[in-house]
Amino acid sequence: MTQPLFEKIALVGIGLIGSSIARAVKRGNLANKLVISTRSQSTLDRAAELGLGDAYIADAAQAVQDADLVVVSVPVGASGAIAEQIAAALKPGAILTDVGSTKGSVIAQMQPHVPDHVHFIPGHPLAGTEKSGPDAGFADLFEKRWCILTPVPGTDVAALDKLTRFWQALGSNVESMDPDHHDKVLAIVSHLPHIIAYNIVGTADDLETVTESEVIKYSASGFRDFTRLAASDPTMWRDICLHNKEAILEMLARFSEDLASLQRAIRWGDGDKLFDLFTHTRSVRRSIIEAGQEVDLPDFGRHAVPETTQQ
Amino acid sequence: MTQPLFEKIALVGIGLIGSSIARAVKRGNLANKLVISTRSQSTLDRAAELGLGDAYIADAAQAVQDADLVVVSVPVGASGAIAEQIAAALKPGAILTDVGSTKGSVIAQMQPHVPDHVHFIPGHPLAGTEKSGPDAGFADLFEKRWCILTPVPGTDVAALDKLTRFWQALGSNVESMDPDHHDKVLAIVSHLPHIIAYNIVGTADDLETVTESEVIKYSASGFRDFTRLAASDPTMWRDICLHNKEAILEMLARFSEDLASLQRAIRWGDGDKLFDLFTHTRSVRRSIIEAGQEVDLPDFGRHAVPETTQQ
Repeated sequence: MTQPLFEKIALVGIGLIGSSIARAVKRGNLANKLVISTRSQSTLDRAAELGLGDAYIADAAQAVQDADLVVVSVPVGASGAIAEQIAAALKPGAILTDVGSTKGSVIAQMQPHVPDHVHFIPGHPLAGTEKSGPDAGFADLFEKRWCILTPVPGTDVAALDKLTRFWQALGSNVESMDPDHHDKVLAIVSHLPHIIAYNIVGTADDLETVTESEVIKYSASGFRDFTRLAASDPTMWRDICLHNKEAILEMLARFSEDLASLQRAIRWGDGDKLFDLFTHTRSVRRSIIEAGQEVDLPDFGRHAVPETTQQ
Repeated sequence: MTQPLFEKIALVGIGLIGSSIARAVKRGNLANKLVISTRSQSTLDRAAELGLGDAYIADAAQAVQDADLVVVSVPVGASGAIAEQIAAALKPGAILTDVGSTKGSVIAQMQPHVPDHVHFIPGHPLAGTEKSGPDAGFADLFEKRWCILTPVPGTDVAALDKLTRFWQALGSNVESMDPDHHDKVLAIVSHLPHIIAYNIVGTADDLETVTESEVIKYSASGFRDFTRLAASDPTMWRDICLHNKEAILEMLARFSEDLASLQRAIRWGDGDKLFDLFTHTRSVRRSIIEAGQEVDLPDFGRHAVPETTQQ
């Protein structure tokens, strides 16, 4: 590509996702100018030290001026305030998108502020790690991952197409989806798993009969798998819980119902029921590996990691 | 070591754990003769094809004759029958151990059959992957992992010391523990995590609003982390649920209690409570990494795995 996809891109928020976008934009030469904005001066200074962009501006309204693409990458609870702050400064014809894990709430918060001459197309790259902050990002975070766009009624087809090409240039597979459906899908594939992981790590930490040091020492027998999700950014996850409440509560109710039934099978020694469930779930992982969404190595490939990189 | 630790070792059961022991025994030259026994003729044939031992005998009683160390590696529900079968054939002075994930139940099942002239020392290596069968084993499975021995009253000190040295030679850190305490510790660090993982994968598979193919497609956003544990051997886990019932039910009750409280915080929008829990759990993972029980890489090091080994 001789001509970058966008003349000027502004990133508002420069955590794990924002800084990964910045790195991928630079690597792919997707903009002639990349402006980075974040509220915290120390984070902005760090982004500058890392050389993530071409300009670093604390004030979001100033940062988005003349930008052809604005990507808001903040905890979902902060998206309304950002939209309000930048609305008047947005260039006519600009594309405004976000990366939030809840879409109904983000649309409700941002949409009212967006001027008619701006293409607001909410999005959500399903990518991340348990790390956070500008140092945690890397250019191939989105490689082979899905990015879900949830266009609102009346979205401009050319703008949607351009944003799709942007995410494809970052390495993503792009899918469009209704915002409500997105929120239900994410509640089960992402939000419930994180909440369950946070919960079990909390439970383990509160026992009288087993000490915390025992839990840590013997964690490789299963527990440690949960600690990765439970090490995710607390602000981000607090906001997700508060902003996708209905779908999360529904999934939690189903999970608890199923768990009560499993608990009953254990209490009454119903080995056949346990065996059937435990057999069926095995095939799900196989399908995920076949779909290219997981490594086909035991233990997540932990054993394939050279010892020298382990502590 | 010029002299192997044991003259003759017999392994009863040759799945993931048994075959890993076999490989490590060969690599470390820990026995002059290694006899392998398993009920299934096809599994025994496979073990022979893999060259895991020096002799392959389907009949367990015949296999353990003259053995100085007998390691029983079968689902915990089968340990009583194995003990009954081999008891009369055990050599005086032999060490008899097992690798089961529950210890109270294994002791209750095996102990009554063990002759006085045999040293019965139950054990449990906290190591494994989600794979099963003789092909899944590897020699360094026990490297830096813990092996818990739960000696019964009156255990011979020399025999305990010799079994300790055996596990150390396989690369393990060895710890002795009361069987009851073992079962409580394992209920939280291993059994509850597996049950929760099986349960959430089951829940996800039963939804009407979100399809199974969507769950698989978007699983990288959290769900896939649970599928590893939920892909573990169904027979083994059915038996664990049935044989550590009391401790598991206690941990399940606590987990559900905590989850109800978390659910209430979500329903009522108690962001501070969510933030506090989500902050605290983060430090647990850090401790596990510092204890050398987890890799210090984002995403379990999945990104460090060369693309060519991925499907």
